[in-house]
Amino acid sequence: MNANGHQTAGTTGTYESMAGPLASSSFVRPTDRMVAALNDVSSATACAKLHQLGITRTFIDGPVPLHRTPDVHVVGGAVTLQFLPQREDVFSGAAQEDAERKTALWRVLETIQPGDVLVVSAQASHFTGCLGDMLVRYFKLRGGAGIVVDGRVRDAPRIRALGVPVWCTGTTPHYASQTELFPYAFNVPVGVGGTLVTPGDLIVADEDGAVAVPQDRAIALAEDALSHQDREAFARDRLDAGGRLSDYYPLTGPGLAEYLASQLASDNGQPR
Amino acid sequence: MNANGHQTAGTTGTYESMAGPLASSSFVRPTDRMVAALNDVSSATACAKLHQLGITRTFIDGPVPLHRTPDVHVVGGAVTLQFLPQREDVFSGAAQEDAERKTALWRVLETIQPGDVLVVSAQASHFTGCLGDMLVRYFKLRGGAGIVVDGRVRDAPRIRALGVPVWCTGTTPHYASQTELFPYAFNVPVGVGGTLVTPGDLIVADEDGAVAVPQDRAIALAEDALSHQDREAFARDRLDAGGRLSDYYPLTGPGLAEYLASQLASDNGQPR
Amino acid sequence: MNANGHQTAGTTGTYESMAGPLASSSFVRPTDRMVAALNDVSSATACAKLHQLGITRTFIDGPVPLHRTPDVHVVGGAVTLQFLPQREDVFSGAAQEDAERKTALWRVLETIQPGDVLVVSAQASHFTGCLGDMLVRYFKLRGGAGIVVDGRVRDAPRIRALGVPVWCTGTTPHYASQTELFPYAFNVPVGVGGTLVTPGDLIVADEDGAVAVPQDRAIALAEDALSHQDREAFARDRLDAGGRLSDYYPLTGPGLAEYLASQLASDNGQPR
Amino acid sequence: MNANGHQTAGTTGTYESMAGPLASSSFVRPTDRMVAALNDVSSATACAKLHQLGITRTFIDGPVPLHRTPDVHVVGGAVTLQFLPQREDVFSGAAQEDAERKTALWRVLETIQPGDVLVVSAQASHFTGCLGDMLVRYFKLRGGAGIVVDGRVRDAPRIRALGVPVWCTGTTPHYASQTELFPYAFNVPVGVGGTLVTPGDLIVADEDGAVAVPQDRAIALAEDALSHQDREAFARDRLDAGGRLSDYYPLTGPGLAEYLASQLASDNGQPR
Amino acid sequence: MNANGHQTAGTTGTYESMAGPLASSSFVRPTDRMVAALNDVSSATACAKLHQLGITRTFIDGPVPLHRTPDVHVVGGAVTLQFLPQREDVFSGAAQEDAERKTALWRVLETIQPGDVLVVSAQASHFTGCLGDMLVRYFKLRGGAGIVVDGRVRDAPRIRALGVPVWCTGTTPHYASQTELFPYAFNVPVGVGGTLVTPGDLIVADEDGAVAVPQDRAIALAEDALSHQDREAFARDRLDAGGRLSDYYPLTGPGLAEYLASQLASDNGQPR
Amino acid sequence: MNANGHQTAGTTGTYESMAGPLASSSFVRPTDRMVAALNDVSSATACAKLHQLGITRTFIDGPVPLHRTPDVHVVGGAVTLQFLPQREDVFSGAAQEDAERKTALWRVLETIQPGDVLVVSAQASHFTGCLGDMLVRYFKLRGGAGIVVDGRVRDAPRIRALGVPVWCTGTTPHYASQTELFPYAFNVPVGVGGTLVTPGDLIVADEDGAVAVPQDRAIALAEDALSHQDREAFARDRLDAGGRLSDYYPLTGPGLAEYLASQLASDNGQPR
Repeated sequence: MNANGHQTAGTTGTYESMAGPLASSSFVRPTDRMVAALNDVSSATACAKLHQLGITRTFIDGPVPLHRTPDVHVVGGAVTLQFLPQREDVFSGAAQEDAERKTALWRVLETIQPGDVLVVSAQASHFTGCLGDMLVRYFKLRGGAGIVVDGRVRDAPRIRALGVPVWCTGTTPHYASQTELFPYAFNVPVGVGGTLVTPGDLIVADEDGAVAVPQDRAIALAEDALSHQDREAFARDRLDAGGRLSDYYPLTGPGLAEYLASQLASDNGQPR
Repeated sequence: MNANGHQTAGTTGTYESMAGPLASSSFVRPTDRMVAALNDVSSATACAKLHQLGITRTFIDGPVPLHRTPDVHVVGGAVTLQFLPQREDVFSGAAQEDAERKTALWRVLETIQPGDVLVVSAQASHFTGCLGDMLVRYFKLRGGAGIVVDGRVRDAPRIRALGVPVWCTGTTPHYASQTELFPYAFNVPVGVGGTLVTPGDLIVADEDGAVAVPQDRAIALAEDALSHQDREAFARDRLDAGGRLSDYYPLTGPGLAEYLASQLASDNGQPR
Repeated sequence: MNANGHQTAGTTGTYESMAGPLASSSFVRPTDRMVAALNDVSSATACAKLHQLGITRTFIDGPVPLHRTPDVHVVGGAVTLQFLPQREDVFSGAAQEDAERKTALWRVLETIQPGDVLVVSAQASHFTGCLGDMLVRYFKLRGGAGIVVDGRVRDAPRIRALGVPVWCTGTTPHYASQTELFPYAFNVPVGVGGTLVTPGDLIVADEDGAVAVPQDRAIALAEDALSHQDREAFARDRLDAGGRLSDYYPLTGPGLAEYLASQLASDNGQPR
Repeated sequence: MNANGHQTAGTTGTYESMAGPLASSSFVRPTDRMVAALNDVSSATACAKLHQLGITRTFIDGPVPLHRTPDVHVVGGAVTLQFLPQREDVFSGAAQEDAERKTALWRVLETIQPGDVLVVSAQASHFTGCLGDMLVRYFKLRGGAGIVVDGRVRDAPRIRALGVPVWCTGTTPHYASQTELFPYAFNVPVGVGGTLVTPGDLIVADEDGAVAVPQDRAIALAEDALSHQDREAFARDRLDAGGRLSDYYPLTGPGLAEYLASQLASDNGQPR
Repeated sequence: MNANGHQTAGTTGTYESMAGPLASSSFVRPTDRMVAALNDVSSATACAKLHQLGITRTFIDGPVPLHRTPDVHVVGGAVTLQFLPQREDVFSGAAQEDAERKTALWRVLETIQPGDVLVVSAQASHFTGCLGDMLVRYFKLRGGAGIVVDGRVRDAPRIRALGVPVWCTGTTPHYASQTELFPYAFNVPVGVGGTLVTPGDLIVADEDGAVAVPQDRAIALAEDALSHQDREAFARDRLDAGGRLSDYYPLTGPGLAEYLASQLASDNGQPR
Repeated sequence: MNANGHQTAGTTGTYESMAGPLASSSFVRPTDRMVAALNDVSSATACAKLHQLGITRTFIDGPVPLHRTPDVHVVGGAVTLQFLPQREDVFSGAAQEDAERKTALWRVLETIQPGDVLVVSAQASHFTGCLGDMLVRYFKLRGGAGIVVDGRVRDAPRIRALGVPVWCTGTTPHYASQTELFPYAFNVPVGVGGTLVTPGDLIVADEDGAVAVPQDRAIALAEDALSHQDREAFARDRLDAGGRLSDYYPLTGPGLAEYLASQLASDNGQPR
């Protein structure tokens, strides 16, 4: 045990002698209120507002929707999974049928709670089908909300049929630990698509991509976003009515005054 | 002013002290006849015929259709937009809500004329959503025909709903000047996807990709293409009737003679 | 002729002086039984089972479906086509209309037999539309089953309309020998997407990707796969019924015993 | 002429009909004092200090030293050159011997003044040898201080023999406008290696790389850097004497107090 | 604390609230005998022999020598450092002068013991100068043997002057936590250049690259390597004397018999 | 045997059952006169002159010098070697010590004649050390002039000590058939670095890179190059004497007249 009270398994030996996968048990899932607040916030608005709040790297670049249904929008708390390169003296895909079951991949799936978003760090490997039909089916049975993989999946048509929204970097016939990588740890901070995701972070994902939202920014961000969306709706109407782009977008100066006046009129005219 | 009569804004200072974005005012849009002539020409035929005419680099490599409607085919005159890397002493995304409005992005949109194709050079940046719902909406209101972006867009579902055909390198939740780039100039020659596009060039875009067609080649190319397509239709019939590939495709030698004879017969039998 | 009895055309001179394209005539197509056996085997199962058999590089990484119809699954014997870089003293795209017809591309298409899968090695070139509408049409007329291209195609909407399943790395308006590459040889061993494909290999392709299966592994692999799929169906039922992931997937130990018992019961109750 | 008073050449036509290359004539070179101030500042210190001043994108990523002499350090004012993709109807490398001479490449070289640093934007092209022996020789004769190319050069041994420090992305036997690109404009803002460089910016380049420094930050940055380097020298001594890393680097808190005391003692003991 | 006895810091909050960097304290450094045994083994031989022993992914692909001295060969036990993407709510480079000191980067350096090889996982970031002059100086003072960085360094000439062998993916003027990444953990298993390195692994590095050697393979590998090198010396002599390549390399069959006979003769003639 | 008289080994089976590697025996090495003529021609001049002759793809992009000696210049006839991806049922690196000896790699080395340049197509693989000390030693003993590898080598310091000039894409501790690829054929046309090389082509390589020169262009190219170099020497003198760049480079118009007059004067004054 070091000065910080951290411990990890001995590193000279096999994965099994490490007493199984590395994990964190102490993270806190987001509250229902946080999730609900973000339900009407697009990934684009979340990303822009976080930038204004000084948090600039939130877009998980790489994963795109596997599902083809329009307007899918997922919000949930992140549970994480970290893959590392295989080395046969530590973990090998050769005898994997038994071995894989004891890895962080099985472990994290068995801890899924309703509403969780599984976030997988697999370095966009072309030869690692991080999840297949069976694992996604189990994820769905446990109530998982969606999956974001910085890597590939397999059994794509079956996964799509299950209806679980999945963002990934592609498909591959390889299973998770067939060749390059193996599932090393779960619920630890990970780098995915160039962005840090820590367990418990909120994930907002739609067709534009997936964004990580720190818990303590969620409520403020959502409130700001609602106001933002109101203004955008007003601006959209003005443009449709022939307004000039730079007069109404972004909505500042005279355009904003016009909007505020219309809000006031609306409040006065139609008492709520 | 230099020996060539060109002028640009002073370069030591901020974007604003440059008196706004660099632009060209002297380009000439293609004629309706040019556009009409290319309306039945695929990007593949345009690219092949230009190659035969000695113009070899015309394919804008990178942007793919965002729209999912089959058989979309766009022809129009190019208006161009050039992004450059941000540097906070020149332009910063931090205070962008006001700043962005004065950039070449807003300016080019406010000059769109019906039938224009907006061509954006953004170095395929992953963190630059060159256009979003609001800007594409305005583009549509002004009658724009289509958009080709060597970069990404955001608000993908809304853009798709607007029905404006967009070719791009992907989606991102970032807005245009959020991090890496900013809109520097418009209606200047740009490099997009490895190809030069100058304002006024014709753009022919369909599912195979987008191609730049110089104005002075448009009519000749289109006439040649129509003849080409007639021959291909004949060859297609021959193949369907059991003909050998190398006898009828490409249509030269005896196959061509057969085609010409059939044309003659057709002309004689059915006087136009 | 060298010690191995191989011959190739003289290499100093033009493509024509090489007496036409390099080809092999001695490969053996897979039997109908092999093809039938693999008809119910997904690319994912084929790839996993080959790995267990010690064959680890079978996934053709890169090509993805051009077709958008779900559940397309193709099995067939490989015929191969190899592109090499153009050099004007050997082969030039400039005078191609006549020249291309004499290349390995036309030649391989005229040797297609029903059920063949055409596998093209084109180094994922962005400027080589290996196949277009006319060539795919001819391929279909000869009964070809599907096409896997480590490169691009053109005339995408027409190809899709023909209904021939095509896996490729994208689209381009360029025709096959327009700029970078030319068709050099056919029915020779090729590297495609990092994997060796020799003529006569079985190709199994679906949405997860395309996999090369050696003929002498096909029957054993298929039998093992059927058993594998039975077990997965059982596991799927157990999970749906509330079973724990690591108890039923993979199906070993007590889970396997339960399955075998259920099989026995089923066999006893319902004599076949 | 547009609202901003900018003009560019007509864009429909050849490069020649554009009346030659686009250029700016209004930039101001840095003062001798600015250059002198940065002479003792490494690229690493310049980049770090600019970051502290809020300017975060200053590193020109890609170009590395072609010269092999250790400790080369160049400071000077940027003159810029922009390449764009060739298109045969605008500019072609086929008849280049005459054409190239009238391009921005020749033009910018003939405007070099002593101490200038030539910064070339060529998209890291592998087939564009932006500069060769003859052009670098002329650059040297005019007193140029160094060259930073986001692209390649040719005649590498001769360039090295000339002793002009060059940062580039590699070598190629191609000359500047042989195939992909042509020199389009000079002394305009350019993107090089992901960073904006405007004419007149200071360039600080050494083995770690090249950094762009805005003129109005140069003096303050240099003064801060000198103080920084004094502190680092003190920290280096402390570490060599057995000090703990986190006590002396970075030099804050007690370590800083110790340093300040030593400075005071030194000033008292040895009056300047 | 989870079922495996692992603990990590709470993940919702800042880096400081995590009570500092994640670390392992339980790894065992290799014995002097292991290090000595590998002192005459090249990275090429180590990599080949490990492959024969069934360990196939041992080459750390990416880092190349920064030093220019020929024949540098380093063997030592790995201490590891893991970078993750910055996110301003967790760790920011903006206020870094104080913050960086408390990270895993400072911590790992203060635990260096004589003979250690520092192995850094930084995803080959172009904007992360993982180590500079001051940190490498401290590393040297503590007796470190060498550094392998899957990322860049800064202060290259000073580092080279210090004489510490460094393998890295390039140079950059950025300091470690200036923009993209921050030092998250040390002495944990890391992926570097596609290879797993766990603390305590032996690292063998020379001009061909760096290789990870598990402790329990070190002695056997070294003994086999010595025998291998004896045979290669014999084969080299035979080739120099006019022998045919396939008769003497690899040394099997008659060539091996000849070698064994020569060994016997040598032992008889010159008693040890 | 097919219609063209070509034969290849049966493709269903192992590499051995193919009766060894595919090879061509019919190519013709360049004459001594061709080699001598190109001895004073740089790769840059060869590439430029071939372009003027209509041959545009001659630069082998990727390989750079491994040797560090300045001014290395190699001219010779190409012998070629083609690697393909390994597949364990065809060829495996697992039992390689015996197997590799029978491959095209050993075979091509045993056919080297004095002055040959070995050109290797290995797709720039990071895990294929195409050649090591022992093989390069044998190459040298047979009189080989130089090696160009679109891939990596191992034993870099020993290879450098041997003094054989090698252009390669890097180093790796892996031996040739350790993992990804195996040597499939020799003296067949290959694609290397995007360029076609056929056996017998002349290779001109120096620090700028390696260029393929067709035999039938060699003499004309060399004569033109000499004249070109004379003119460049004259232009260099004029620039050194204060001439303007565009007056003397390229040497056309009045500059050329001045040169021709000087040649005439020189011939008159100093009779040869």
